Parts: sequence; C-alpha cells; structure tokens
Amino acid sequence: MSKVAFSTAADLSAALASLPECSEDSLVLAKARQDQLTKPQGSLGRLEELAIWMASWQGKEKPQLNKPVCLVFAGNHGVTARGVSAYPAEVTHQMVLNFEAGGAAINQLTKLADAELKVIPLDLDNPTKDFTSEPAMSEEECCAALQAGADAIPQGTDLIMLGEMGIGNTTAAAAVSNAVFGGTATDWIGPGTGVGEEGLSIKRDVVNEAIALHKDRQTTAFECLRTVGGRELAAIAGAVVEARVRGVPVLLDGFIATAAASALVKDNPAALDHALISHVSKEPGHKRLADNLNQRPVLDLDMRLGEASGAAVALLIVRAALATHNGMATFGEAGVSTAS
Amino acid sequence: MSKVAFSTAADLSAALASLPECSEDSLVLAKARQDQLTKPQGSLGRLEELAIWMASWQGKEKPQLNKPVCLVFAGNHGVTARGVSAYPAEVTHQMVLNFEAGGAAINQLTKLADAELKVIPLDLDNPTKDFTSEPAMSEEECCAALQAGADAIPQGTDLIMLGEMGIGNTTAAAAVSNAVFGGTATDWIGPGTGVGEEGLSIKRDVVNEAIALHKDRQTTAFECLRTVGGRELAAIAGAVVEARVRGVPVLLDGFIATAAASALVKDNPAALDHALISHVSKEPGHKRLADNLNQRPVLDLDMRLGEASGAAVALLIVRAALATHNGMATFGEAGVSTAS
Repeated sequence: MSKVAFSTAADLSAALASLPECSEDSLVLAKARQDQLTKPQGSLGRLEELAIWMASWQGKEKPQLNKPVCLVFAGNHGVTARGVSAYPAEVTHQMVLNFEAGGAAINQLTKLADAELKVIPLDLDNPTKDFTSEPAMSEEECCAALQAGADAIPQGTDLIMLGEMGIGNTTAAAAVSNAVFGGTATDWIGPGTGVGEEGLSIKRDVVNEAIALHKDRQTTAFECLRTVGGRELAAIAGAVVEARVRGVPVLLDGFIATAAASALVKDNPAALDHALISHVSKEPGHKRLADNLNQRPVLDLDMRLGEASGAAVALLIVRAALATHNGMATFGEAGVSTAS
Repeated sequence: MSKVAFSTAADLSAALASLPECSEDSLVLAKARQDQLTKPQGSLGRLEELAIWMASWQGKEKPQLNKPVCLVFAGNHGVTARGVSAYPAEVTHQMVLNFEAGGAAINQLTKLADAELKVIPLDLDNPTKDFTSEPAMSEEECCAALQAGADAIPQGTDLIMLGEMGIGNTTAAAAVSNAVFGGTATDWIGPGTGVGEEGLSIKRDVVNEAIALHKDRQTTAFECLRTVGGRELAAIAGAVVEARVRGVPVLLDGFIATAAASALVKDNPAALDHALISHVSKEPGHKRLADNLNQRPVLDLDMRLGEASGAAVALLIVRAALATHNGMATFGEAGVSTAS
C-alpha cells in the first residue's frame, strides 16, 4: 500500500512540500562508529560516506540490505515518429520480453547483486503524444504513471534502484532536463543508443520545438514531467517521492532516470537528498545533470545502457560500504594501537 | 609449485625478458561475443573492456571467476625509525592479527566478493634496513621476498588481487616510484595513514636522501625493489611475474601495490599488461603512477587504506563484467531487433 496518492497535479506539489528529513541521530551514530573501526579515519573514502548516508535515511546506525529492489519502468514515446532513435519503437516491448526471459544485462546484474528485479511495462500499446505538437501526457495519464511508480515499491524494501527502458527516451530526458535547468537543446542531447549526426540534428530540433511549445508552463515538477516526459519518467519520479516518505534510500541509474528525478527539485531543492546518482553515463547530458544537482556519481564506467544497469553495479559498492561498516572490528576490540 | 624461481637478481631480469603474451584468439572471440549481446554496442563501457581483458589473459572466450584469491603481504621497514608514519611499527603485526581474526576491512570485502584471503607476514621481526643509510635488502633477502610472492598464488587461481600492510611503506613506495619514473620526492610523497606537515617534511627528506644514495644503481627492476622497497613490495612484484607466467589476471590495489608492480616496467614496458590498477587512491602519488603507466583505474572512491581493499571492491566490478558477458542473451536468441 503506497503512502502517497497521486490523483491531481497538486498532489505531487503537496508531497514535495512536506518531505521527511533524514535521521540526524543515526547519522551521528554511524559517523562515530566509522571513526572507531580498525583503519585510519576516512581511509575507506566514499564507502564511509555511503554507509553513513544509508544509516541516515534508513534511520539505523547499522543499515541493512535485506531486500534491495530494482525497478525498471518501460514506456513508449510518440516522439519516436520523428526519427530520434537508432532502434525501432517495438524494441521497448521486445526488451521487456528479454527482461522477463532473463536475458538482459539487468537480469545478470541483479542476480549478481542479490537484488529483486521488477519490470513494469506502462501502457506500451499507447505511446505518449509527440510532445513537439502537444503535451506528452494528460494530467490523468501523468498521475497514473506517478502512482504506478509509487505502487511498485514492495513492502520491506530497504533500497530501491530505479531504471528504465523506452526507445526515444533520451530525447524526452533531454527535454525534461532543459525544462528543469534551462540551457540550450545542445546541452542535453546526445547519441543515446547510437544515432549519428543526422539523428543528433533531429533530436536538437525536437527539443527546441518542445522548448518553444511548453516552456511557459514548465514551472512545476508535474508540468515538466507531463509536457515532455514519458510514463517511465513519471513513474521514476513517483517512486522517488514514495521512497522518501517510506525512508528508503534510492540509487538512480543514468541520464534518463536522473532527468526524471531531477524534475522534483523544481518544487523542492532537497527532494533528492535520499537519492544518489549511481554512475555517470557516457550520455553527455548526464554529467551536466549531476553537476546541476551537486552530486558526484558513485561510479564512472562509461556505461550508457539504462535499464538500471548502472544502479545495480552501484549496489555492489553500497554492499561493500555496509559490509565494512557493519562487520569491521573497532580498535578496542582488535587491540590495535591508534595514531599518535 | 611456482613456475618462476628467484635465486639471483638476474632471475627477475630473465623472467621479465620472456613474458608470455595474451591470447589474441580469445580476445577476438570475446569482442565478437560482446557485439552480439542484447544492448547497443559498447553501452556497457568498461564492463565490456574488463570482460575482454579477462578473456584475453585467461585464454577463454568466456572467462571464469571460480577461485579469485586476495594476497595481502605484510612487512616492516627500518625507515620507520625516521618518524615517517602516524602509527607505531607494531601496528603491522597487530593488523596481521586483526586480519587473522577476521576484523579488518579486507576480511569483510573478500567475504562479500566471494574471494579467498591469504595474509602473508614476511619476517616482521626483521625489518628492512633504513634505506637512507644502506640498501633496504640484500640480494638474498630481496630474492626471498620475490619468491614468497610467487609461491603465494594457489593452484587454480583465476584472478589475483594484490595488497599490503606495512607501517612506513608509503615512504618506500614513494622512493620506488621515484626510482622508476624520476621526478622529485615531492611528486611521490603524501599523507599515507595521516601524517601532518611535519611528517610530510620528514618523508620528503627521507626520499631525497634515498635518491642521493641509490639513484646510480637503480637501473633494473630488481635494484629499484632491493634498494628502497620492502619485503611486501618485492613479494607483490614476484606475484605479478608468476601470475603472468601462469595466465592469471591481476588486480593491483593502491599506491604501494602499484609502485611495487611498476618497478617491473623498468625492465619491460609491457610487464603490467595483465595487471590492472583497481582504484585510484587518495594518496596523491597514485594518480601520477597510473598516468605514467597509461592506465585508467577502474574505481575512484577516495580510498587510501591498502590491505587490498580497493582491489577487492574492484573484483565486484569484474564479477559484473563477467556476469553480463557470460550470461546475457544475444539479439538472435532474444528476438530483439538490431539498430538501423
């Protein structure tokens, strides 16, 4: 049962206006624990930061990973009619079948990282509208997608990874990024699955048309997602909000997942404090998004696949952080001399 | 039974003069496999590179990780008498006891990554000589340490992680780095476990004295290790050579492990083609070493602990690389359309 209900556009704004904070007590306790472990203080670097971040959002001095869940939302995009992708739109559905059959990258990575994988196709037979001529979604459609995201988080989840599949969605993500952070179309477009110069030029035109058509009404998180996003992007945003309310830390995957989540900072700059960018994608707009969000992604492995693959790899790093945080001996326990 | 025997200084040079190459056949087959998997070509970035690299050195289209082994060599250093570390020299032995009791970071990380951990203390009661007044080791001592490294690799190992523990050894590593790549003492020294300005100044003096005393004879890998290295550094170098001869890929840990291995390029610039730098340490000399070796470390997590901790975390990434390489469906198997 989700804690957040999205029936109207105002529900998202209301939820974002009253987000819970992290547990300061758990944060302080986790920091103190790190400084007693048998290593020079700070010498585990980002592993220490990740453990403390997990502690603060789970509200536990020793955070746990008993039920990490990976959500991959899939959606189709009317804007593919404009030729923005190297792949035909039916690949979205074909890849969902590949996820279900266990053959995709994310299947192998979630298995390795001991995480549950849920794939949620969102009305694939009903693509969003081409946002160069009208809003991608109606208010009702966008609310339904937000709700699908919130509803997808199982009870007892202690970390959520968010990713997507949707032919054409780097173009939607570029348009959302522009709506949130401004700049030019060129700042946010990139090769995606691998378009050449001609495809890039089309993506630039499409985003510029979207800016001209929708800019004036993109003043809220909801409108950024509704006008130029897509169902899978809205679902990711809904899941990020629901996770915050439930005290579940989030690992965002790459460019599209981060763009979707970044819409939320339009209403509340602290909306992603519980959500880390797991890796910096090779898609050029992603680094710009991370910079705008003042985040340093956990990994930099030149990945650009989506489907939560980067988030699943980052889960391995979070597991390393918790293994050391929870399992190491203290100086006192081990009888090791401290620094002079 | 080790394949390489180190009885004299000439044995190391001879081994380095006849190192085996990787399997070009396996490399080509692994590349071809990657390009058929259900993802845009290249979209798994460094995971693809790691899988292909593993294939080329194991000589298998589908490389395996059935028996990854982590070796942590420990040694003591006469140069600690000069005050180069924030910790007393007895911490080397205390940390070996902590490794044996299962309380250190590397215990948690090898358990998580499903790797065997072997800790090899090297004559801890007999520190190397203070290399500001004489060579750290005799030829015999250095050969014994090289051999200990080679002998430590168990039969059937399919990937080796190399790390160390030794109070004072960032100073030895700085001196070795200088011997191999030149530059000034300042280029290679850093805070190590956490010395302040005074400690840094001592480290600078110590390395400068070592340069003045030993520079002229540091023309071979062996002499770089013998004059200013340490037992754990020589053991790492010996293990790197033995691994190459046996077709075992290597993950080097941080500054000290990389400095030790880098001595080998003094005799053969291709000596580390089978050895990747697993992460870039916060210790400033490490990035400089990586640049000199033309390597981009797999991870950048601000770690600076040593004891193979960064290598063990990188093993998780190599596991992710092989999970996708070996487990994913091809476009043909999954019935997914390819790019136009």
